[in-house]
Amino acid sequence: MNQNRDRQYEVVIIGGGPAGLSAGLYTARARLRSIVVEKGIVGGQIINARLIENYPGFPEGIGGLELADLISQQAEKHGLETLIAEVTGIELKGEPKIVKTSEGNLVAKAVIIAVGLERSKLGVPGEAEFTGKGVSYCATCDGAFFRDQTIAVVGGGNAAINEALDLTDFAAKVIVLHRGRELRATRVLQEKALANPKIEFQWNTIVEAIEGEAFVKRLKLRDVISNEASTLDVAGIFVAIGSEPGTAYLKGLLRMDAAGYIITNEKMETNIPGVFAAGDVRSTSIRQTIAAAGDGAIAAIYAERFVRQKG
Amino acid sequence: MNQNRDRQYEVVIIGGGPAGLSAGLYTARARLRSIVVEKGIVGGQIINARLIENYPGFPEGIGGLELADLISQQAEKHGLETLIAEVTGIELKGEPKIVKTSEGNLVAKAVIIAVGLERSKLGVPGEAEFTGKGVSYCATCDGAFFRDQTIAVVGGGNAAINEALDLTDFAAKVIVLHRGRELRATRVLQEKALANPKIEFQWNTIVEAIEGEAFVKRLKLRDVISNEASTLDVAGIFVAIGSEPGTAYLKGLLRMDAAGYIITNEKMETNIPGVFAAGDVRSTSIRQTIAAAGDGAIAAIYAERFVRQKG
Repeated sequence: MNQNRDRQYEVVIIGGGPAGLSAGLYTARARLRSIVVEKGIVGGQIINARLIENYPGFPEGIGGLELADLISQQAEKHGLETLIAEVTGIELKGEPKIVKTSEGNLVAKAVIIAVGLERSKLGVPGEAEFTGKGVSYCATCDGAFFRDQTIAVVGGGNAAINEALDLTDFAAKVIVLHRGRELRATRVLQEKALANPKIEFQWNTIVEAIEGEAFVKRLKLRDVISNEASTLDVAGIFVAIGSEPGTAYLKGLLRMDAAGYIITNEKMETNIPGVFAAGDVRSTSIRQTIAAAGDGAIAAIYAERFVRQKG
Repeated sequence: MNQNRDRQYEVVIIGGGPAGLSAGLYTARARLRSIVVEKGIVGGQIINARLIENYPGFPEGIGGLELADLISQQAEKHGLETLIAEVTGIELKGEPKIVKTSEGNLVAKAVIIAVGLERSKLGVPGEAEFTGKGVSYCATCDGAFFRDQTIAVVGGGNAAINEALDLTDFAAKVIVLHRGRELRATRVLQEKALANPKIEFQWNTIVEAIEGEAFVKRLKLRDVISNEASTLDVAGIFVAIGSEPGTAYLKGLLRMDAAGYIITNEKMETNIPGVFAAGDVRSTSIRQTIAAAGDGAIAAIYAERFVRQKG
């Protein structure tokens, strides 16, 4: 799509997780021409959650993918458009605002940033090169590619242990590489993982490089106590060492805290008029699905007010 | 229950709507001894909503009663207790805090106030006398009593138009009395109501008195433009002219705005440590189910932190 075909919207929402979809549901229902841009799978981080037990309305819990799908269906039913594209840049200062994506420019009266968190990178040689070729940050997305193979998971928190457990559905063996000697994951998860015959643990271990040809073949490891180097043959590596806000391309454009989370007031307004933020990307978010969805509704209502005032 | 049988809790939640139930779901899951006190039907205002289309997760919409029931089941499953009782007084300053109810005292380390809104009264002769005898503030509760009859709805906002639409299931004719010439309800609702053959509109009209014998028989009306008086025969009248916070017994105890809404910060903290507010009763609430549920989760997380710090 070229510049001549810039698409005009009243509200452009960046990020298709619970916050973005909830915002889009509200702006679409308010009859504002609305689109959500999502770079991966609609649903955001919750697609990694096998069972969400604390989203009010689902007494038996609900799968993250399933909840994402329900909210997405609902928003589309009410008129929200969805675009799967990478946001490559953004012009927020003027009016209208311009969201540049891999699929062309989106022109908007108001922008709601709901990009959530993304997985932290290891920052080792081979990681970028093999991303999508054996290096993954999402078991739900990519687990099925590793049927009956040996794979590694890096990390020791809830995310890592959840991923390891999920991956046992597909993989022959899952080796958890953790730089410490103890998991940080909750007791229940630890017990499940330690009892699972497909999961092995390699403690005090860091990844120093990822190697392969067309795909990942092996990891260069180091024991942080003995300082010994070793090699581990794997078909894939899932990195789950933490998360950070997906705000790299927004640096310097919006007020953020030191960790890169966007600062808003209670109306989800950022320091730039017409630019709102919602969900886990906000500095004061409690990082819960229900609160993200609530944020989205709030951002939408004040975005609507902003758009209507501009005429 | 007498004073000797005061029950001890870590968190007492006043109000069993989406905010209160969501808060209770979270505090119960955090293994805090938690109870929600509700004076009426668990669910709060949403029980009046036939179809909630904008609570994310239900693409086809969901009935308010049904959603309330789901959230309530979920919270109880995770350990939340429920008490149907009227709150008669409250001691918030000291520690512990005491919530006095028609069923005895509840002693709490932290209190979450999620009492929501209650319907405003018309304040005209006959209103109090005929309440429950043709005067109602809740179509969901009382609509079925008016099968094949002519009834009036007073108001022009979302609540009034929703009630009017709901009442067409039962009534032969629903006459919407609105003091203005234009509805304040959202576009979608307006369109539905204007297209419904059972609904008539009487603009620029106020109710001056409600008359009847054992039950409501007629309304005394006045046209605010022409100043002409008239009479309208109806079997019932549903008042939906607005809502106000149910905070009468909290006056002077907590910081509120001029309209009686409780002032909190983003953590749902009121001006008294250990006392939180969530949902529509908050001064800056957007008064949406999803945002109320989000508020509840936030209040719960900070109430948990408060309780843990106290040991």
